[in-house]
Amino acid sequence: MIKNYLMTPGPTPVPEDIRNEMAKPIIHHRTKEYQAIFKDATEGLKKIFKTSGDIFTFTSSGTGAMEASIVNVLSPGDRIIVVRGGKFGERFGDIAKSYGVEVIPIDIEWGTAPGPEVIKEELDKNPGVKGVYTTLCETSTATVYDIKSIGRVVRETDALFICDVISGLGADGFENDAWGVDIAVCGSQKGLMIPPGLAFCSVSAKAWKAVETSKLPKFYFNFKKYKKAYADTDTPFTSAITLVIGLRKAVEAINKIGIDNVTAEHQKAAEAFRQAVKAMALGIYSKSPSSAVTGVNAPAGINADDIIKLLKTESGVTFAGGQEALKGRIFRAAHMGGIDRDYIIESLKALEQALAKLGHKFVPGSGVAAAERVLKG
Amino acid sequence: MIKNYLMTPGPTPVPEDIRNEMAKPIIHHRTKEYQAIFKDATEGLKKIFKTSGDIFTFTSSGTGAMEASIVNVLSPGDRIIVVRGGKFGERFGDIAKSYGVEVIPIDIEWGTAPGPEVIKEELDKNPGVKGVYTTLCETSTATVYDIKSIGRVVRETDALFICDVISGLGADGFENDAWGVDIAVCGSQKGLMIPPGLAFCSVSAKAWKAVETSKLPKFYFNFKKYKKAYADTDTPFTSAITLVIGLRKAVEAINKIGIDNVTAEHQKAAEAFRQAVKAMALGIYSKSPSSAVTGVNAPAGINADDIIKLLKTESGVTFAGGQEALKGRIFRAAHMGGIDRDYIIESLKALEQALAKLGHKFVPGSGVAAAERVLKG
Repeated sequence: MIKNYLMTPGPTPVPEDIRNEMAKPIIHHRTKEYQAIFKDATEGLKKIFKTSGDIFTFTSSGTGAMEASIVNVLSPGDRIIVVRGGKFGERFGDIAKSYGVEVIPIDIEWGTAPGPEVIKEELDKNPGVKGVYTTLCETSTATVYDIKSIGRVVRETDALFICDVISGLGADGFENDAWGVDIAVCGSQKGLMIPPGLAFCSVSAKAWKAVETSKLPKFYFNFKKYKKAYADTDTPFTSAITLVIGLRKAVEAINKIGIDNVTAEHQKAAEAFRQAVKAMALGIYSKSPSSAVTGVNAPAGINADDIIKLLKTESGVTFAGGQEALKGRIFRAAHMGGIDRDYIIESLKALEQALAKLGHKFVPGSGVAAAERVLKG
Repeated sequence: MIKNYLMTPGPTPVPEDIRNEMAKPIIHHRTKEYQAIFKDATEGLKKIFKTSGDIFTFTSSGTGAMEASIVNVLSPGDRIIVVRGGKFGERFGDIAKSYGVEVIPIDIEWGTAPGPEVIKEELDKNPGVKGVYTTLCETSTATVYDIKSIGRVVRETDALFICDVISGLGADGFENDAWGVDIAVCGSQKGLMIPPGLAFCSVSAKAWKAVETSKLPKFYFNFKKYKKAYADTDTPFTSAITLVIGLRKAVEAINKIGIDNVTAEHQKAAEAFRQAVKAMALGIYSKSPSSAVTGVNAPAGINADDIIKLLKTESGVTFAGGQEALKGRIFRAAHMGGIDRDYIIESLKALEQALAKLGHKFVPGSGVAAAERVLKG
């Protein structure tokens, strides 16, 4: 029996106690019992996001909440700035265009992060821009953006600051209110350790003003319907009961340790992983590596997908491949949610074996040793 | 310990083997293992819907799929006929209006079903209407509509026939293709026996033609994105993995028995429940009672919510109340999904006790006896 080490940047492993909690006989959602669970989950999320504003839970993938962050605050013909440095930044642009919103792209090289000065320049050049859409961790390139600095720039303008924190939350460090984020978009299957199916939007007071004038059509993702229902600790549509039950348990576990401690631990694990792959004579793809997920360049002459395949079949370790132009060129290993030190060390052992088998030259044991040095430090 | 009998019209009880299957360690969605599960679930759904066309699975509540059935086939200014005989028919109208679609309402008395001649008359009066939106089981009034006859009328026109089968599928009888339904909208937490969080749309060839010309904005619910991904046994956005794993198991269980047999059993259970409440000197609310859920008038002088409360606290039986104007006036008991004969009999025993306690006059034992007669027949 090979133990499974799921290290994809979503879904991440769901802890056993959370799985068991979700497997209990289902309860009805219009009950005091469920209302208490839902309220706990929402309040717990606020601590993790570090916000005193609203957070709404949608039954959808993260993309649904990305759409919500567009349709609730914009009108046809509005202009927004979208940072496109990977697949998910591009998606913000694609959604906006589907709704007749004009996209002013900031196209940066994949694997790099946008400097706040670039955002400022574009804001200065385009007065009247309604929002800046960006990403905490661009999962496709395993790159973290400096949201704190970008937030400082955007808050000086009338534009809203919208940030996709889907994979970054809980690993890259995030402070919704302190960093001036108006809408943070998140999903359930990454740092929050539950299965995919829920997505979240925080909504600031500044964002609510835009909601009042927004003319894009919406119904299922309409913030106002959620706001109204939440006032009665209710949901506008049938809640994904079992996933919310899992969410409550997950946020309780995270808040018991403290989100700062959880983040610091994942950052240390990510640093250990990076030092290990460097010791194994591999290169990190990103110039601004995320702590949620690391993208590693395949060595010359070896296809990244062959490494992934060997890891999976021989060691039960699941890494993700590169997407689009990066397919075959990089592999990605996540360090968030239920992925702990054991996963880091075991996956590195497996990676050493796979690379040796594929003919890559490095000092055997060097990767694991480097990781252990970081983890002990 | 009181055993729990969840008899709400969604969620319905999730069988233990399905809950356990969903509680296994999570797997990644971009794998052959998951693709096989997803394909099985989709093919299994087609047998239950009785369609050879497409069926797409969305991560959303049923309302999300209702929205999908509007935004994918219509353009701003289009006119549609919407039957409004309860909360869910009204919702179709509300969604359409949110998107700038003109609604031609057929407002019928709550608890009644629309005759096909009424639909024909409205179609004749309004040439160029793009769709007829109606409901198999109007859950709020526990009323079944004659979809087969309405389908015969609509198929003679260029209008699409869209039917919300969210609560009716698997209990009221439904034949997607034979009845000429172009889009059937369904949810996971009723006859399909899994938790809420998934929703479905069937899409006919006639509907696909409308998709090609539809100009309403969409992204997350865009049928074309699903069609393209499904061609590679993939999903456009991260799939709600655990719910789909549950879905596969549920549709396998249903198809093993056969959807016609499953439907017949629930219809018998519904008939048993109706005969029982009549024997207990209670009236059925609907003039066209559904087999998915029965709405029962509270006796004069007794609030339906008091009956529901007693059932819950003293016997562990959960019925649903009336919605909006029906609040306090009716209670609703479902007969679909995992709700079996044991639930019917136990809930009737509890109902007899509750009614006796509240002073309603009836022959003790008469309800259970009437139900048993039907079930044995």
